[in-house]
Amino acid sequence: MSGDKINLERMMHRLNQLALCSRGSRGITRLSFSRESECANRLVRDWMREAGMVVRMDPLGNVIGRYEGRRPGAPAFLIGSHLDSVIEGGKYDGALGVVAGIEIVQTLRERGLRPDLPIEVIAFCDEEGARFHTTLLGSRAMAGMLREEDLCARDSDGITLAEAMRSFGLDPSRYTDAVRDPQSVAGYLELHIEQGPVLEREDQACGAVSGIAGAARCRFRVEGRASHAGTVPMSLRRDALAGAAEIVLAVERIAGRMPSVVATVGQLRVFPGTSNVIPGAVEGTLDVRSMEDEQRQAALKEICEEAERISRRRGLSFTCRTVMEAAATPCSARLVQAVEEALAKRGLKPLRIPSGAGHDALAMASLTEVGMIFVRCRNGISHHPDEYVAPEDVGTGTAVLLDAVLELTAAETAEKFLNKAVKGANTP
Amino acid sequence: MSGDKINLERMMHRLNQLALCSRGSRGITRLSFSRESECANRLVRDWMREAGMVVRMDPLGNVIGRYEGRRPGAPAFLIGSHLDSVIEGGKYDGALGVVAGIEIVQTLRERGLRPDLPIEVIAFCDEEGARFHTTLLGSRAMAGMLREEDLCARDSDGITLAEAMRSFGLDPSRYTDAVRDPQSVAGYLELHIEQGPVLEREDQACGAVSGIAGAARCRFRVEGRASHAGTVPMSLRRDALAGAAEIVLAVERIAGRMPSVVATVGQLRVFPGTSNVIPGAVEGTLDVRSMEDEQRQAALKEICEEAERISRRRGLSFTCRTVMEAAATPCSARLVQAVEEALAKRGLKPLRIPSGAGHDALAMASLTEVGMIFVRCRNGISHHPDEYVAPEDVGTGTAVLLDAVLELTAAETAEKFLNKAVKGANTP
Repeated sequence: MSGDKINLERMMHRLNQLALCSRGSRGITRLSFSRESECANRLVRDWMREAGMVVRMDPLGNVIGRYEGRRPGAPAFLIGSHLDSVIEGGKYDGALGVVAGIEIVQTLRERGLRPDLPIEVIAFCDEEGARFHTTLLGSRAMAGMLREEDLCARDSDGITLAEAMRSFGLDPSRYTDAVRDPQSVAGYLELHIEQGPVLEREDQACGAVSGIAGAARCRFRVEGRASHAGTVPMSLRRDALAGAAEIVLAVERIAGRMPSVVATVGQLRVFPGTSNVIPGAVEGTLDVRSMEDEQRQAALKEICEEAERISRRRGLSFTCRTVMEAAATPCSARLVQAVEEALAKRGLKPLRIPSGAGHDALAMASLTEVGMIFVRCRNGISHHPDEYVAPEDVGTGTAVLLDAVLELTAAETAEKFLNKAVKGANTP
Repeated sequence: MSGDKINLERMMHRLNQLALCSRGSRGITRLSFSRESECANRLVRDWMREAGMVVRMDPLGNVIGRYEGRRPGAPAFLIGSHLDSVIEGGKYDGALGVVAGIEIVQTLRERGLRPDLPIEVIAFCDEEGARFHTTLLGSRAMAGMLREEDLCARDSDGITLAEAMRSFGLDPSRYTDAVRDPQSVAGYLELHIEQGPVLEREDQACGAVSGIAGAARCRFRVEGRASHAGTVPMSLRRDALAGAAEIVLAVERIAGRMPSVVATVGQLRVFPGTSNVIPGAVEGTLDVRSMEDEQRQAALKEICEEAERISRRRGLSFTCRTVMEAAATPCSARLVQAVEEALAKRGLKPLRIPSGAGHDALAMASLTEVGMIFVRCRNGISHHPDEYVAPEDVGTGTAVLLDAVLELTAAETAEKFLNKAVKGANTP
């Protein structure tokens, strides 16, 4: 038994069917707890059953299919990814990992194979945070990291997460019932599109993920003086946007000097924001990531110092508030090794790529050992209607996933894992 | 008789009373054809009658008070400004010019003086365009520049100008009856707050306006490639916001090198505008003004060329569309001279300030010769609740206005004007 036996045609058909569960005509828009996500959940439940799994939905709306192993009561090996999308995103982000997980189980079932450990395939309900602006809802709930206040997050129509869950038939007060016992879990492996240009540059269909970069997300505000665009000479202005523009370029310059760091100003709002008024204030977001926590912290510090210097020189004020900060999360050495062996088996380089994006694996790492497989996507484009993965890369990635899962759920490996008596800790 | 005789206490009281005709609690909000503007019109009509004027409202809702001169049938000298405000604006913008015009006539009346030419004080109904997003409605109607399509402009509730006029008791179909015969008019002088910092820097209460700057208003778009903020190395990005930031700084630099030019990016919108996505597109507005049309055109050309260079270097595309362009409008030499003489009479410097902002005088210039007096406002702040003019500056500005009007409506001056047989042309 090896990964070549997967049914690529079925996978591509399923990806196309999921893509139909979308709002609007441009790209994929499938927000959590929407009519479109219900449509996707229904498809996934049907496919899981077809693959021989017992299906349930946990209290947060994660769809979970379980394929029993030969040793009843043994901890389950988890494979998963998410079904929600960003607004006008692509059809592979998240969906590919769910379809690949189901395909693996269905392949085993069709070959009459049953691994030692049970396998669970999880379709997480909300990873992107596009609706409630708070990411990894499904996996954080499962890992016991969701907080009651998350239920109060509101979407752009003012609907809270709790209200959205209720109208989806879920009971938000039961959210803690989604938490998994670490003892019942033997690891988590996620296949996901790379969403970056590295595999394309390396000319390889897929690779192992070494870990998930640490990230800081900040909100900054530059304050100057709003005044009439026609009456104030250039030399007497305190233009908040001109100051913010210098800061945006400083972010680019500072991150560009540090090889492991990326930094982005993704949002910028100008007040009052009319054509004939000199901007009085600008608010923006700053996102800094690195696999090296010290580098990330150093970059953020330098950016803030430089922004303050720029603002002082222009008679502006600068404030910056860190709203999220997460340390880098390395993948488990055991899982990385299993992926690398699967790569080697088909003559691929043992590439280890850091993930700059957060994934459900990030939250799952506080529950169990995690690993990830990245699949090449064209031009590194994701979160966009042009997102594209070549079918042959889908096939190669899923075959590598199958081989790694076979290794990780086989009797001997499972035994090793159980003997270590890992209690939810992620051991890199 | 000289300007000292004006009643400053009465003026300040009237400004305070007008300030009560406002919606909301922050600053002044007095949109055209609203309950608040009706309240202001009523006050102004009462004060005009008290000042000895015959009052009428023209078909567009401009309130006009007429104080007859000694020579019946002679063309009228006009003094005016507007009664509408922006949303949450200040209490002097527009209102000061109306109150000053009334004060001058009332001062003449109280001294038993009657100039050779009749004087008309006009309170324009809509200069700011805050309600219908189309400026100078009242003065454009009077100058014959209002077009039928302007009546279809809608406010944010979808109410058209024609509907708003009807519910205000006006007949929109009669809008052309507001047009004045140029032969019946001997000039237009407007006192207005500066809305800029020049007088404050010059340490003087008021000055003559040399003209109203020409303006170009453009919309530009920078297009790059949206991608995930965590996965694309800095060197492989095509960040539209980083490009737009360079363009904002180029606008500042190019305008800063040309003494007569100001240029402003007042609005900037980032797409998709989320913290974890590298901006794929940015849209902004560019406002360029100058008293010298050639300088304005040269600045705009240089900005666009530089923006294209920046975009090319970064692999971005840049497009720019001019949505409005207006030539500079110089004030009449005769009126500027009268104001300068009035300044000199009270020991003030003969300052000539270009107006970067549009005013009713801009529309009136296509009807008759125009002049303006600017009054210092604190920190140059306007269109804001903090707008403030010191009472002594109100007094000085109104005294200068009175002296200039006395000169411009006296027998000899009027004779000179009539002999020139000017037909609505503005002769600088």
